[in-house]
Amino acid sequence: MVEDIPFEPVLELVGVLVGAMSGALAAVRKQFDVFGIVVLGWAAGLGGGMLRDVLIGAVPPVGIADWRLITTAVLGAFLMYFFHPRLERARRVIVVLDAGALAVFTVVGTVKGLEYGTTAVAAVIVGVMTGAGGGVLRDVLSGEVPVVLHDRQLYAIPSMLGAIGVAVCWSVGWRTPVVLSAVVVGIFALRVLSLRFRLHAPGPWRGRPGGQAGWSP
Amino acid sequence: MVEDIPFEPVLELVGVLVGAMSGALAAVRKQFDVFGIVVLGWAAGLGGGMLRDVLIGAVPPVGIADWRLITTAVLGAFLMYFFHPRLERARRVIVVLDAGALAVFTVVGTVKGLEYGTTAVAAVIVGVMTGAGGGVLRDVLSGEVPVVLHDRQLYAIPSMLGAIGVAVCWSVGWRTPVVLSAVVVGIFALRVLSLRFRLHAPGPWRGRPGGQAGWSP
Amino acid sequence: MVEDIPFEPVLELVGVLVGAMSGALAAVRKQFDVFGIVVLGWAAGLGGGMLRDVLIGAVPPVGIADWRLITTAVLGAFLMYFFHPRLERARRVIVVLDAGALAVFTVVGTVKGLEYGTTAVAAVIVGVMTGAGGGVLRDVLSGEVPVVLHDRQLYAIPSMLGAIGVAVCWSVGWRTPVVLSAVVVGIFALRVLSLRFRLHAPGPWRGRPGGQAGWSP
Repeated sequence: MVEDIPFEPVLELVGVLVGAMSGALAAVRKQFDVFGIVVLGWAAGLGGGMLRDVLIGAVPPVGIADWRLITTAVLGAFLMYFFHPRLERARRVIVVLDAGALAVFTVVGTVKGLEYGTTAVAAVIVGVMTGAGGGVLRDVLSGEVPVVLHDRQLYAIPSMLGAIGVAVCWSVGWRTPVVLSAVVVGIFALRVLSLRFRLHAPGPWRGRPGGQAGWSP
Repeated sequence: MVEDIPFEPVLELVGVLVGAMSGALAAVRKQFDVFGIVVLGWAAGLGGGMLRDVLIGAVPPVGIADWRLITTAVLGAFLMYFFHPRLERARRVIVVLDAGALAVFTVVGTVKGLEYGTTAVAAVIVGVMTGAGGGVLRDVLSGEVPVVLHDRQLYAIPSMLGAIGVAVCWSVGWRTPVVLSAVVVGIFALRVLSLRFRLHAPGPWRGRPGGQAGWSP
Repeated sequence: MVEDIPFEPVLELVGVLVGAMSGALAAVRKQFDVFGIVVLGWAAGLGGGMLRDVLIGAVPPVGIADWRLITTAVLGAFLMYFFHPRLERARRVIVVLDAGALAVFTVVGTVKGLEYGTTAVAAVIVGVMTGAGGGVLRDVLSGEVPVVLHDRQLYAIPSMLGAIGVAVCWSVGWRTPVVLSAVVVGIFALRVLSLRFRLHAPGPWRGRPGGQAGWSP
């Protein structure tokens, strides 16, 4: 367990809450019904952890088994259900909270992968999945192309750098709360600074390709 | 096993058949080829159970392992492949059969979750997933937003109430065929009555939000 | 292990490389950012094997655990990232390589299913999933309807025939490299010949249905 990172359980609940609110907002925008709003909140808040748990064999995943996390996700969805006009105006606060959630989820997910005895590469992949997977599930279920794949914001890249940092520290034996907390802060800072200074990931080299039809079935 | 619910194996096969027909019809409408029609039938008829089995660790899931269920799903897909003009006119019958399938799948799925030793919350989630998950997979694979999330028909909500009912009865020790059958009838009745009286789930509180752009990446 | 099929490890790496290139090309066409291009390459090259491994309980799946396969997928994605204008002109070569990958993936996937003690039916399903699943994941993540389901090219059908062939040979005790290699060649030949002679899978019987609205929620 990594319960030793200061405030880790609290931060994880905040992460689930914020993730669920982002999912519920997407559902509200698409005029889903109340069931769809709760499901999309649940998928966005807990989907990344569920993907991780299924891939490392930690079944049943926390997203269906841990009632505290599930209650938090449902709460986040209902907050958005009732207060979306007001919450949309608080966008800036929520983006910052979401950056915190990304950081915590990434570190917790990477450590969980390592604790389950996966390779370092696998731990990095499930760490990023824990951080960014909920958003992918939210977007697929609401009929959108996953925004993390095309948006060019620095969202997954801070997460990936942080996951690599955790895996490297783990392999040399630095597994203390201080080290893990430092990575959380690093991911958070990179995410917030990239928003502040409008840093972007590059798109395809040499722009748009000419051909239209694919060569692959 | 819950083979003690009267006609349970028969009802489960009917559920897979009807689910597969709904998937194959979606594929026919999109002009998929014969392979796509069979795959979408299989996904719609057996996808809910597969999601459940992967999440509770019951691998390989019945959707790839039980040849009777798979044969039934393929049969349903081919029925729709050959007879879709006629079957579409039998819409009313099929909606009622589908309500029966929803009821059976929900109860069977919830019980299977409980038998695998999950928490009551997890059993409810996998129960609803067993009932409504096949349709979600069908819609995602055919490029649609899952209809159960936005349609406002009472489809998932009867399923969820029934799954909660099963979990509550289970926890107080009422695990008899009579109790489980009563829940099946309850889900079925709620679904059919909601269609008859045009009951709907509510959409987002206070209508459509003003903003267009999301605050979450 | 089926390392006894001649060149099998090499062919598998070629398959992952070609699959990853197809995923990265789809991402380039959609103007994804560099992270999205790598993720789509990884999903297309390794997604089929990951689906298989999750369904048969072989966790963590090779797609997150085997660094050689992952490195190959990332390499394929970056090749496409930098050289897509040139690579698109080599379309014909890549289609042939992809046919080879389909053949190898199908046979390797079916054998892995059988080795994990699944039923023959399950092994056929996971074999086809190994061959064609990466493309399905690529298409869902890039917001497209999976091309293998509607395109009418003979892509999944040679894979399915080959998987059935492997399962039948396995059950009668023919498990030698020669037999497995023959099936690989058979799938490859059927795929290439169907392209050469423009063979197609049939669409829905009796064309497009009249009704528009679905009867299933």
